Amino acid sequence: MEEKSQTTCEKYAADIFSIREAQVRIKSFVHRTPVLSSETLNSIAGRKLLFKCECFQKGGAFKFRGACNAIFSLDDGLAARGVVTHSSGNHAAALSLAAKLRGIPAYIVIPKNAPKCKVENVKRYGGNVIWSEANMQSREETAAKVVKETGAVLVHPYNDGRIISGQGTMALELLEQAPQIDTIIVPISGGGLISGVALAAKSINPAIRVLAAEPIGANDAAQSKTAGRIINLAETNTIADGLRAFLGDLTWPIVRDFVDDVITVDDKEIVEAMRLCYEILKVAVEPSGAIGLAAVLSDNFRRNPTWKDCSHIGIVLSGGNVDLGVLWDSFNK
Amino acid sequence: MEEKSQTTCEKYAADIFSIREAQVRIKSFVHRTPVLSSETLNSIAGRKLLFKCECFQKGGAFKFRGACNAIFSLDDGLAARGVVTHSSGNHAAALSLAAKLRGIPAYIVIPKNAPKCKVENVKRYGGNVIWSEANMQSREETAAKVVKETGAVLVHPYNDGRIISGQGTMALELLEQAPQIDTIIVPISGGGLISGVALAAKSINPAIRVLAAEPIGANDAAQSKTAGRIINLAETNTIADGLRAFLGDLTWPIVRDFVDDVITVDDKEIVEAMRLCYEILKVAVEPSGAIGLAAVLSDNFRRNPTWKDCSHIGIVLSGGNVDLGVLWDSFNK
Repeated sequence: MEEKSQTTCEKYAADIFSIREAQVRIKSFVHRTPVLSSETLNSIAGRKLLFKCECFQKGGAFKFRGACNAIFSLDDGLAARGVVTHSSGNHAAALSLAAKLRGIPAYIVIPKNAPKCKVENVKRYGGNVIWSEANMQSREETAAKVVKETGAVLVHPYNDGRIISGQGTMALELLEQAPQIDTIIVPISGGGLISGVALAAKSINPAIRVLAAEPIGANDAAQSKTAGRIINLAETNTIADGLRAFLGDLTWPIVRDFVDDVITVDDKEIVEAMRLCYEILKVAVEPSGAIGLAAVLSDNFRRNPTWKDCSHIGIVLSGGNVDLGVLWDSFNK
Repeated sequence: MEEKSQTTCEKYAADIFSIREAQVRIKSFVHRTPVLSSETLNSIAGRKLLFKCECFQKGGAFKFRGACNAIFSLDDGLAARGVVTHSSGNHAAALSLAAKLRGIPAYIVIPKNAPKCKVENVKRYGGNVIWSEANMQSREETAAKVVKETGAVLVHPYNDGRIISGQGTMALELLEQAPQIDTIIVPISGGGLISGVALAAKSINPAIRVLAAEPIGANDAAQSKTAGRIINLAETNTIADGLRAFLGDLTWPIVRDFVDDVITVDDKEIVEAMRLCYEILKVAVEPSGAIGLAAVLSDNFRRNPTWKDCSHIGIVLSGGNVDLGVLWDSFNK
């Protein structure tokens, strides 16, 4: 953050202080997820890879960090009304679980095309499922209706300082566990995770490189970085169902200023990374969660001389919520 | 171990001292594997379950501990000749990898019906594959021939004090990571792992219960415990290909004296446990490796009043070497 941090700390939705506060707030609720490594994958990549396994986080994804921080930040009066969100899945499960821990209701607007296992997760954690159409307008309208009827607090999946701060705790933990890391590769969708990671990691070590991994069929972040403004896409096309969202007005400035580059990969590369996670690391990870490994192994990354010195790469694996049938089908295409 | 330990320490092939020596010897080579937990699985089991994820060990299974201890115990002259073993897979991969680390050859006798991914692991780690027929006699004869021709040291998969001591280091680690454990459930096949675990755990805490988990279709350990002598079976029938071996003369006395009970489960229970590992824990584990969870969830365990007070159960998950096709097929039977 160097020079920038001196003048601009307050203009972002989160900072190292809100992230450290979040860490204290959520510590007793979240898993300290392990960091795995594999000599086989190191050989394939030609670098040391350190896998932060957020797929083992409660709810099966890093999303629980932000959800917990948001819910336990609420004062008692607000909290009692409950929370509401629209989400493609992992945030929904996470919010349901965090709400359950606080003993308040969670209203979850889910598009009709969401993967079955994600819907089941929401139900398992006690969330109240409210269906919407499979487009963002219907999701937002349905959520607004719930807010109006119940007074529940809307907790956006990513465009929210409390969420960004919560997700950033993952980077604090990772750099405690593996301080030798010089690069972190993070899946990007709405930008909540990578915003928190970039703010946390660059505050601890300004030389650290923070790279986004994005599907070529939903490359709004790559396009936004090139254009210097938020680009929304008319449609997306990727197997990585968790990475179809677009940057928000709170995540975009952080991504713009602190994410060093966006590495795009195609679905074939994502599926191959899933397979390696499964066969070599023994970790079940969904397409969205395996994209960090896909990026490290991609030609786009390997052949870029800017990244040739990245020798110790932290890769966020998250989440783990994949229908086994989907996994199998994608391996056999 | 109490009274027994005072009179009989020297009659077993390993003890707490050889296990602690092994821990020092192999420390820089092995992964300290994480312990995972899941509230969902705790609810299903009605107990706290602590999963020791040896499927994340190098080579994909706990076997690397014993193999490392055996290989790094050899003096230089002996080591230079190499090592040989016959194995259904995970020990073979582990021995290949440990031999590679020491820079010596590993000759691996593998039965023709071994799972493909296990054979690939051996090759990946530089082992020299020598095929045998799919019966123990052919495996042993082929291995003996290699010993004669090369002078290599035979490292048995389980009936060896160095192997037992190495596997026992898993229990030392687990009880450091989760000292609240009152029960450990361990897959049993030839008995190398459970022998090391029982010796280590009961030396640290004599009140700890050590239970074996065994497929009903290969229940030689259960039969042996009942008969009071080693029982070999004419044939075995189970999906858990890593659990088809029989107790040896070095593992049997330890199993006889220190394993509190053998819980048998059927293949359907094993497959269901694999599914839960995959869907809830997000861990890829082979049938042999999931059997500990199957045992905890089985009626045989739940309805036995002897075990009703087992409240914090350590479950060894190992190994992770499963062909994805096999996994999928077994889920759809």
